[in-house]
Amino acid sequence: MHKLFKGISKLYGIAESPGKVLRGAAMREVLTMDHAWIWVENGKIKSLGDQSDLRQLDGVHFDEVIDMQQQEVMPGFVDSHTHIVFASPRNEEFVMRIEGAGYEEIAAAGGGILNSARKLQLCSEDELYFDAAERLKWMICHGTTTVEIKSGYGLTLESELKMLRVIKRLKQDFPIKVRATFLGAHAFPTEFKGNPDAYVSAVIDQMMPAVCAENLANHVDVFCDKGFFSPEQTTAILEAAAKLGLRAKIHANELGITGGVQVAVDQEAWSADHLEYLGDNEFQLFAQVAGTETETIPVGLPGCSYFLGIPYANLRRLITEGCAVALATDFNPGSSPVCSLQMIWSLACTQMKLLPQEAFHAITCNAARTLRLENEVGSLAPGMDANFLAFGLKDSISTIPYFFGKNHAQQVYVNGNKVAENGNYLA
Amino acid sequence: MHKLFKGISKLYGIAESPGKVLRGAAMREVLTMDHAWIWVENGKIKSLGDQSDLRQLDGVHFDEVIDMQQQEVMPGFVDSHTHIVFASPRNEEFVMRIEGAGYEEIAAAGGGILNSARKLQLCSEDELYFDAAERLKWMICHGTTTVEIKSGYGLTLESELKMLRVIKRLKQDFPIKVRATFLGAHAFPTEFKGNPDAYVSAVIDQMMPAVCAENLANHVDVFCDKGFFSPEQTTAILEAAAKLGLRAKIHANELGITGGVQVAVDQEAWSADHLEYLGDNEFQLFAQVAGTETETIPVGLPGCSYFLGIPYANLRRLITEGCAVALATDFNPGSSPVCSLQMIWSLACTQMKLLPQEAFHAITCNAARTLRLENEVGSLAPGMDANFLAFGLKDSISTIPYFFGKNHAQQVYVNGNKVAENGNYLA
Repeated sequence: MHKLFKGISKLYGIAESPGKVLRGAAMREVLTMDHAWIWVENGKIKSLGDQSDLRQLDGVHFDEVIDMQQQEVMPGFVDSHTHIVFASPRNEEFVMRIEGAGYEEIAAAGGGILNSARKLQLCSEDELYFDAAERLKWMICHGTTTVEIKSGYGLTLESELKMLRVIKRLKQDFPIKVRATFLGAHAFPTEFKGNPDAYVSAVIDQMMPAVCAENLANHVDVFCDKGFFSPEQTTAILEAAAKLGLRAKIHANELGITGGVQVAVDQEAWSADHLEYLGDNEFQLFAQVAGTETETIPVGLPGCSYFLGIPYANLRRLITEGCAVALATDFNPGSSPVCSLQMIWSLACTQMKLLPQEAFHAITCNAARTLRLENEVGSLAPGMDANFLAFGLKDSISTIPYFFGKNHAQQVYVNGNKVAENGNYLA
Repeated sequence: MHKLFKGISKLYGIAESPGKVLRGAAMREVLTMDHAWIWVENGKIKSLGDQSDLRQLDGVHFDEVIDMQQQEVMPGFVDSHTHIVFASPRNEEFVMRIEGAGYEEIAAAGGGILNSARKLQLCSEDELYFDAAERLKWMICHGTTTVEIKSGYGLTLESELKMLRVIKRLKQDFPIKVRATFLGAHAFPTEFKGNPDAYVSAVIDQMMPAVCAENLANHVDVFCDKGFFSPEQTTAILEAAAKLGLRAKIHANELGITGGVQVAVDQEAWSADHLEYLGDNEFQLFAQVAGTETETIPVGLPGCSYFLGIPYANLRRLITEGCAVALATDFNPGSSPVCSLQMIWSLACTQMKLLPQEAFHAITCNAARTLRLENEVGSLAPGMDANFLAFGLKDSISTIPYFFGKNHAQQVYVNGNKVAENGNYLA
């Protein structure tokens, strides 16, 4: 099955070969090609080129030729940190927070992660699936073609498995690439408040083996922070996970400088996400491992800072230190109810002072690196998945974060098939 | 022509009669009706009611019956402050600002209002019209059904008239209500830097009479601020405008506490917009006139604060003082490139700490009041324009600002006709 996408006014985010990851100052340069075409064979990019380079298409029989009508094209976005399986929105906490309620007050009124857990435990798998599928469609319409989804609103073996089975169904039913992360260590359930280590043992001895027995997760995650899991508890969970083949992505330094980054680097986690609070030591650690095989990618989640009014992670300095930084939505009902990586792109530029080009790489190739999928998605090169987005940008990539609050994606292609158009999901 | 819209799960923003404006604590309460219908006659609301109230529909011959399929419905949004007629985006300034350039540096590099003016002077009326029409479609797709549009990137008689003629064409060609504002006093053109009063005289003696001779403007506006027009210059312009029948809406207190609010109240301007810097005296002035026939409505423009990183206007305190506050996009290429009042709604809640209900009134009935159109648009009552939006909100109006960065409007109706659906402009 051969398809030719022609009439592309400009390609953004191309690469000479699969595996592109950009670090430090290199994040400023977007590789582009004018007047381009893409040849797709069986859902993968077979080749791409420009008008001077048409000879290699001679004699090829294309089953379909798609005229892109002078749109700009870039790789599909990679959302490497989401919690889209949840029982219901938490609008009421949103309103309480506007009225001045703090974290403790919201928790006392039945809010927070435990609120989500309580509601989710009462939901059927089908209900959860239906709502999460709806949210996934929103994300795809906004350009996301690879997504990581976490459990963590279950907090019991049964409910965590229920969430992960929902994620498995999403993976089966949707054309996009889905990675599942087991986040049993998202919070301590009420019944373990007096004995948190017993919950850590439950995660290690009961939950993780059961999750792996059903092959329900690619990754493990732990909320390593003040009032949540300590560095020691996190280390214990990650070491046990590694033995089961689950690679780590952790929540770190959202609430303070609490050792999360140290654990992440020490355990060779693929990413450390949040990072609203970082000290010199944390910057140095990220810098030391940047570019190594086992590097931990720092991931900013500015939707959370916007929504909660907490500081933004200092990705600017991490880039100066030579790191490959990534950005994700953190789509979740409590702290970041945002489906659109285009909105995250705007927040990164306006609030975190990333250049449009840097933020672009942070939601494409570098985000793919947090999942070690940079050989398959996140840039456009022969051999990679034919996942791409079409825009009418008038020749500047900065148009997306500049005209904020708007969905710019005109078409979304996954494996060379159109899956969304003008904000409507097609598949 | 009679139409019946039935099957509405909930109506938000209804009123007993036209003219609703909400001040102070009253802004917290959204008037709703469950299981409702709307009867539209010749583009106006003839009547509305709920399931217990069907008898008045007996015997009416409806030309069309539209099943709203249990969507929620609210009034179309009123965007009372925009600059959507411009020659081209200013992405390059956006990038300069990220890199740390200040206002002066951007101006020295040919940026700012004078940059827009230079480019606009070179554009044909047709080019300007085409681009502005595209932006207006974006706005309508996001729920705006009444819009104010300013000139002010012309700064010569000829170019100001060109802009206003573009606005006149938009008014003729689009179904939504358009109000035109003459903003010749937006900045001092370079050639008047040494003699700003001569430009004020040109505005008063040449531009305004010419604008009125062609009947091109409903309002006059002045950028009364530090480095722009002084309170004295502003007063002179507004007094001359009043004699020509142009009611004032002014830019005030964006750059400092510079007397703009005093001029606005003194001159009985219908609104004073921006208000990033307010002192006790300004709050008192707004409070004193709140609720009077000639009140000046304070208008917040949070897109500008978000985009430029300047303070947010303290609308919270203005509400406490008993005012009717409004919100607008300020859609413009330099400081607020945002088309969506849903995005403004989110900024108002998350950054300005307005309740979702307060922000809703600030973009509907109170925004209508800034144009003295509260008898025609901004709430749903018999006799008012049949402008409304359909959503799938699951029973909470806070869903719109909560799930931010997404267009929630499923259908947009103007005068009872569907003009946009799922982000696509139809008319």
